[in-house]
Amino acid sequence: MAAAAANGAGGGGGVPRPTNPMVTPLLTDLYQFTMAYAYWKAGKHLDRAVFDLYFRKNPFGGEFTIFGGLEECIRFIANFKLTDTEIIFLRSAMPTCEDGFFEYLSSIDCSDVAVYAIPEGSVVFPKVPLMIIEGPVAVIQLLETPFLSLVNYASLVTTNAARHRLVAGKPKNLLEFGLRRAQGPDGGISASRYCYMGGFDATSNVAAGRLFGIPIRGTHSHAFVSSFMGLDDIIDRTLASSDGSNKCEDFVSLVQNWLARIKDAGSLRGTFRETNLSELAAFTSYALAFPNSFLALVDTYDVMRSGVPNFCAVALALNDMGYKAAGIRLDSGDLAYLSVETRKFFRAIEEEFGFIGFGKMNITASNDLNEETIDALNKQVSVSAKLYDFIHFLWLNEAPVGELQ
Amino acid sequence: MAAAAANGAGGGGGVPRPTNPMVTPLLTDLYQFTMAYAYWKAGKHLDRAVFDLYFRKNPFGGEFTIFGGLEECIRFIANFKLTDTEIIFLRSAMPTCEDGFFEYLSSIDCSDVAVYAIPEGSVVFPKVPLMIIEGPVAVIQLLETPFLSLVNYASLVTTNAARHRLVAGKPKNLLEFGLRRAQGPDGGISASRYCYMGGFDATSNVAAGRLFGIPIRGTHSHAFVSSFMGLDDIIDRTLASSDGSNKCEDFVSLVQNWLARIKDAGSLRGTFRETNLSELAAFTSYALAFPNSFLALVDTYDVMRSGVPNFCAVALALNDMGYKAAGIRLDSGDLAYLSVETRKFFRAIEEEFGFIGFGKMNITASNDLNEETIDALNKQVSVSAKLYDFIHFLWLNEAPVGELQ
Repeated sequence: MAAAAANGAGGGGGVPRPTNPMVTPLLTDLYQFTMAYAYWKAGKHLDRAVFDLYFRKNPFGGEFTIFGGLEECIRFIANFKLTDTEIIFLRSAMPTCEDGFFEYLSSIDCSDVAVYAIPEGSVVFPKVPLMIIEGPVAVIQLLETPFLSLVNYASLVTTNAARHRLVAGKPKNLLEFGLRRAQGPDGGISASRYCYMGGFDATSNVAAGRLFGIPIRGTHSHAFVSSFMGLDDIIDRTLASSDGSNKCEDFVSLVQNWLARIKDAGSLRGTFRETNLSELAAFTSYALAFPNSFLALVDTYDVMRSGVPNFCAVALALNDMGYKAAGIRLDSGDLAYLSVETRKFFRAIEEEFGFIGFGKMNITASNDLNEETIDALNKQVSVSAKLYDFIHFLWLNEAPVGELQ
Repeated sequence: MAAAAANGAGGGGGVPRPTNPMVTPLLTDLYQFTMAYAYWKAGKHLDRAVFDLYFRKNPFGGEFTIFGGLEECIRFIANFKLTDTEIIFLRSAMPTCEDGFFEYLSSIDCSDVAVYAIPEGSVVFPKVPLMIIEGPVAVIQLLETPFLSLVNYASLVTTNAARHRLVAGKPKNLLEFGLRRAQGPDGGISASRYCYMGGFDATSNVAAGRLFGIPIRGTHSHAFVSSFMGLDDIIDRTLASSDGSNKCEDFVSLVQNWLARIKDAGSLRGTFRETNLSELAAFTSYALAFPNSFLALVDTYDVMRSGVPNFCAVALALNDMGYKAAGIRLDSGDLAYLSVETRKFFRAIEEEFGFIGFGKMNITASNDLNEETIDALNKQVSVSAKLYDFIHFLWLNEAPVGELQ
């Protein structure tokens, strides 16, 4: 995994700073500072203390937890140092405290703190310490909240991702697409990182891809489909073949020809009438932009009567030019039923046009998938249907799902 | 509210950058960039588009939503500019895209984007646009995910806080203490900010206090109480009186004397025997550090047989020196029952020792409070009991609650 670069190089013996620049010694509960003052006032602040970081119950009603967040904790303590402006703020927040305390605070780092930990990514269980933190009691106290903040969510996401991997099975692609529903920007970036750690294959989050070297994936949304009025929207209609040997001057016409042929093909005749032409324009336009990785979202209008036939027309036209389409994405409706029907359609295309392999075209499912729905999909859809899963994480069940449409 | 300072001054006509430095143009789903490329390839990228940001359902089974997150959206677009290194990353992530697209990307800002919005903090309803965003379709597309990431969680937290305020009633103090349970550091900082916007009084989060000028609160935890062995731990036992006119050389003995007097007081005799002396040491030590704001967590050992009597002894000793104790915090057990019993104890102290007002001492409740438990507490506890609420936000019901103990 690539080293995170958002927060620059650290000063802690070469250990980089925490990925999120907002992770500072002030990212803690005030009572950690008031307790530190009380320890200092009692002359106890340098007493050695040992704190265990553990949890009481496995999450998600499960039997295990995956430990995440250790690297960020290490980055945090390796660079722990209160700045002058942070000290000034603390003085204003704790006006009755003596000057000597703030002098002490500005002097501390974590050079005399020892952390013993289970390796990040390990399977862990309740009541067994994940980390044992040893050092001066006043310093250890200041670490409690940031450590919990860095470990709790990381472990939850890693565990959740591993559970999804277990029900999905090894061969499935699991993609995380939760940025818009996470607890703000860092919630999303952390979710992408720890989903990958827990067994996902890729994320939609570009920033997380850059920070952590996670593969990123994405194609288009419903808004893209509905932004087209019709085929006249497409101005540049040329497409060079995959090997560069020839050029199609009017790829739009090639697509239209294929759509007409599909409509007339024996076993498909009557399964659909007129498809939506703005959708066809969007698909064609997207294929012209990404001929090597054409993946279409087929449920903007009607999956079986428009989306799938339109996709097949574009995929067959691409094939004429030496390109292989990447597949479709289903984002609504009865995902199991639609994937089975789509698979049948793809197989009919394979037979009608002698297109070897078209029947095995990828199908990706998305929209509020969870362990239960993935398990149900796996059971309803035969292995040969080869359903791929595309996960939206919805952390808050009753979230108002704002969408730009 | 003080201007946020974490991310420095911005370049967008004096509008500061987003509070979280991780909020960059890359904080978006990859498909926004692939769609932007497809628009560009089709020559449609400069087409004017209008997107509505709205939601479909009020959260928490309620009838309203409070709109939050607008300021951060404005900061984001006012400073929107892809850096050279971000462009290099995008080139590597989209290797088949033409050079001209990346030249276009590096040229764009949001100077030709118009945002029409309902004021932040307004009560809003489903299907009514919170924001209308107008501009070149390729640019607007890139804004979708960051806007949703900045608005969804902000609106959820603000709404949740407002709902808590409604059930708690106006006179209660509502304090937010959710950092350790939020979705990572920024989830916690945002929660503090938007809880305050939604009607909370203060937060425990020091970083949020500094960034947004939110009042911060905090006293001590169970770990502090259990870190003391006994009264011998206290080395410096002197306490100057509030007005500076005299000095108590042995405040510990003063506390012990008061504890003996309480034990022998007529109406309290027999209600408790020996209190826990390490707890008494912790309380005394904390009072020596914060004589003006002594608030004790009384449930480490036994609320009625140790915590409350120990608190009263320290509070009465402080009173001798001209200080007024701030109250107690209950963090476990039957909060309604314990607060009623504690109130009775406080009233008995008032009567036995003629201490006017002691019966009205503040009681704060904490630990997994939510709308239902606050409502139940309000109903069970008479108004004169004056229960104050202290909220832990637990966003994930099945979170493994790691605690350093």
